[in-house]
Amino acid sequence: MNTLKVIKIGGHLLDDEELLGKFMQDFTTLEGYKILVHGGGKKATDVSKSLGLEVKMIKGRRVTTKADLDVTIMVYAGLINKTLVAELQALNVDALGLSGADLNLIKAIKRPSVPIDFGHVGDIDENGVNGDKLSSLLESDFVPIFSAITHDAQGNLFNTNADTIATNIAKAMAASYHVELIFCFEKEGVLNSANELIDTLNDADFDELKKQNAIKDGMIPKLTNGFDALSGGVNVWIKHAKNLTQPKGTELI
Amino acid sequence: MNTLKVIKIGGHLLDDEELLGKFMQDFTTLEGYKILVHGGGKKATDVSKSLGLEVKMIKGRRVTTKADLDVTIMVYAGLINKTLVAELQALNVDALGLSGADLNLIKAIKRPSVPIDFGHVGDIDENGVNGDKLSSLLESDFVPIFSAITHDAQGNLFNTNADTIATNIAKAMAASYHVELIFCFEKEGVLNSANELIDTLNDADFDELKKQNAIKDGMIPKLTNGFDALSGGVNVWIKHAKNLTQPKGTELI
Repeated sequence: MNTLKVIKIGGHLLDDEELLGKFMQDFTTLEGYKILVHGGGKKATDVSKSLGLEVKMIKGRRVTTKADLDVTIMVYAGLINKTLVAELQALNVDALGLSGADLNLIKAIKRPSVPIDFGHVGDIDENGVNGDKLSSLLESDFVPIFSAITHDAQGNLFNTNADTIATNIAKAMAASYHVELIFCFEKEGVLNSANELIDTLNDADFDELKKQNAIKDGMIPKLTNGFDALSGGVNVWIKHAKNLTQPKGTELI
Repeated sequence: MNTLKVIKIGGHLLDDEELLGKFMQDFTTLEGYKILVHGGGKKATDVSKSLGLEVKMIKGRRVTTKADLDVTIMVYAGLINKTLVAELQALNVDALGLSGADLNLIKAIKRPSVPIDFGHVGDIDENGVNGDKLSSLLESDFVPIFSAITHDAQGNLFNTNADTIATNIAKAMAASYHVELIFCFEKEGVLNSANELIDTLNDADFDELKKQNAIKDGMIPKLTNGFDALSGGVNVWIKHAKNLTQPKGTELI
């Protein structure tokens, strides 16, 4: 089985030019097939503000109005995606920028409006990732760069959580590849309440740390996604973006 | 030789929902390989205005500051491209949204700043279109949807005239396909000074009509592009977007 690395990068990295530069260099050196999934960053918020849009949050998650969706598509699928693609092409990575609508690669359904109406947000269909088509892109030696935009195959685009996209891609590809899912962010990995790195984490410890409130906020859905992928036969790491090529960080076991 | 239709659509069509709907339906019925190239439309101007950017024009052509370039990438490669892709996917067209940076498909060089500095505008390299890679996409039965953004393979993105992109694609593919280049716009075709449709137009007549000032403004670069493609073995039509599937309009001969 061939190796496939699915790497998710988020806002902090995109906003740190120097770190992003190092990450991109590291990314070029990764052997085997690879897929990059990126979120937004400060730019989407900046554009929203400039356009006079108010960022609405419910329970730490952005509510996506139609105007917000347009900004998300513009910034994620447009500016950030094409900038990353152009920079990777300059490094001789044959990058192909994608949204879930392109080639119908990721199908989602609009999140039900009860109990909370998140607006134009999509949850990925159980069989929403078109693994065969994604494989054919990889086998053409293309490097897919996904923005966190999906569609419903009925003409509607959705804002979709980038961690969830990376997780669903990793799971869908696990039948055909040895898949490693790497969540890159701005900390060394999952930290305990003494702010020390947890080298390996299992599901039971995760539950315990949640109860102790040592793991909270955005780390909970990230790890829930991670354990979901792990149960699907994927190797999962949570690590600092600077350590992409290093065996440092938290490995889910 | 297989048939390839390269179809360029511009701003007016993108701003007319009803006409765009008809055009999309017609596009699905076209036999053979096909590529869509789109420009901007009112949306880019709207976003620029909302962001407080001033649209600068020199000799009828937009000057692209860095802020303008960002808007262009956001609106063209992001919002418009992904909206078209999602709508075509809903019509069972296996659309793949692209910029010139993706897969290094269209390489350009920054337009020299003398005599006029157009800013972040790229002119396509003589061998800038990667015809082999584009062929491999077509032969995978993908339908490329190009936004008018190119790159220099050194990490820089450029705003590039959509007519010129369509022309260069058509010329690059003419060795391998029977290529038809169709410029769709909001008039019946090329009109004479009595506002009557010119069914067929040759180079000598074009020169004469330019002298009479019967052909002017944006139609001149469009036709210059068209005759350039014609000389490269491409069939060229200029027609109303509503007549995509009809043999109506102006054919260059």
